[in-house]
Amino acid sequence: MTEKPIQHHYADEYAHCYGCGRLNDHGLQIKSYVDGDETVCHFTPGHKYSGGFPGFLYGGMIASLMDCHGAATAWAAMAGMEPLPLSRFVTASLKIDYRAPTPINIEIEIRGKVSQIKGLKVVVDLTLSAGGKLYAEGSAVMVQIPIDKKGREDGDKP
Amino acid sequence: MTEKPIQHHYADEYAHCYGCGRLNDHGLQIKSYVDGDETVCHFTPGHKYSGGFPGFLYGGMIASLMDCHGAATAWAAMAGMEPLPLSRFVTASLKIDYRAPTPINIEIEIRGKVSQIKGLKVVVDLTLSAGGKLYAEGSAVMVQIPIDKKGREDGDKP
Repeated sequence: MTEKPIQHHYADEYAHCYGCGRLNDHGLQIKSYVDGDETVCHFTPGHKYSGGFPGFLYGGMIASLMDCHGAATAWAAMAGMEPLPLSRFVTASLKIDYRAPTPINIEIEIRGKVSQIKGLKVVVDLTLSAGGKLYAEGSAVMVQIPIDKKGREDGDKP
Repeated sequence: MTEKPIQHHYADEYAHCYGCGRLNDHGLQIKSYVDGDETVCHFTPGHKYSGGFPGFLYGGMIASLMDCHGAATAWAAMAGMEPLPLSRFVTASLKIDYRAPTPINIEIEIRGKVSQIKGLKVVVDLTLSAGGKLYAEGSAVMVQIPIDKKGREDGDKP
């Protein structure tokens, strides 16, 4: 497993994500690592991230972890093919199948593996497990942002 | 539009969700309402919920809003068919297509509409827009939990 988190390679201007931005002091600051031909992220959600029933994780957190880890997986895959600096990825689509209620207050492992790269698009397969048991799996389509556009292709301004 | 949020009908034991639980003091406490044959939720995410670029919303929040609002939409649809009290819904699957970078610090509208009900399963179509513009759309498959099981069908304990 690499020693430096993938997110720590992101340029400062891309490092503000609530889920994974190292410069977002209010966020989750999850960290993803390259592990052979996969990527891995460990995170232990606390009690407040309960779903409807205390003791289980809410679905939005599972989606958030998969989304950010998926983006990091795409970044790492493309970083192996292009010279740095590399622009960030944004999510084009995200699909999650929730297999069983996910416990909280234990370490969760999210794994990603690239299944397709086509131009700026990277498809990442994702799993979320804890204690060796699979709780959710999914797929994310990530798109790399051309370095000078920063997601504002359509004229939107913050 | 109904005056009482759908989530305020949930039994106390199901009201701890980080996204929508009225009893989770640390959570987002989003509120969904019935609006004709649809449901609607308004939420204004603050600056800290930035995506990678400041000024845009992170994808995990979009997923969280759609997930919780989808569960509420399913609940409301089933509540129209069954006598209360009604058990909660959990997410079986969630699919989101991100159409454009979503701004923060403005009011977002999430709308849900049931497209299928089969036994305990409810399929909900979802949109997320702001200022009349569509930013994301998706679909959630929600499953009602039998009243005495609380998601622990497979022997998991918190």
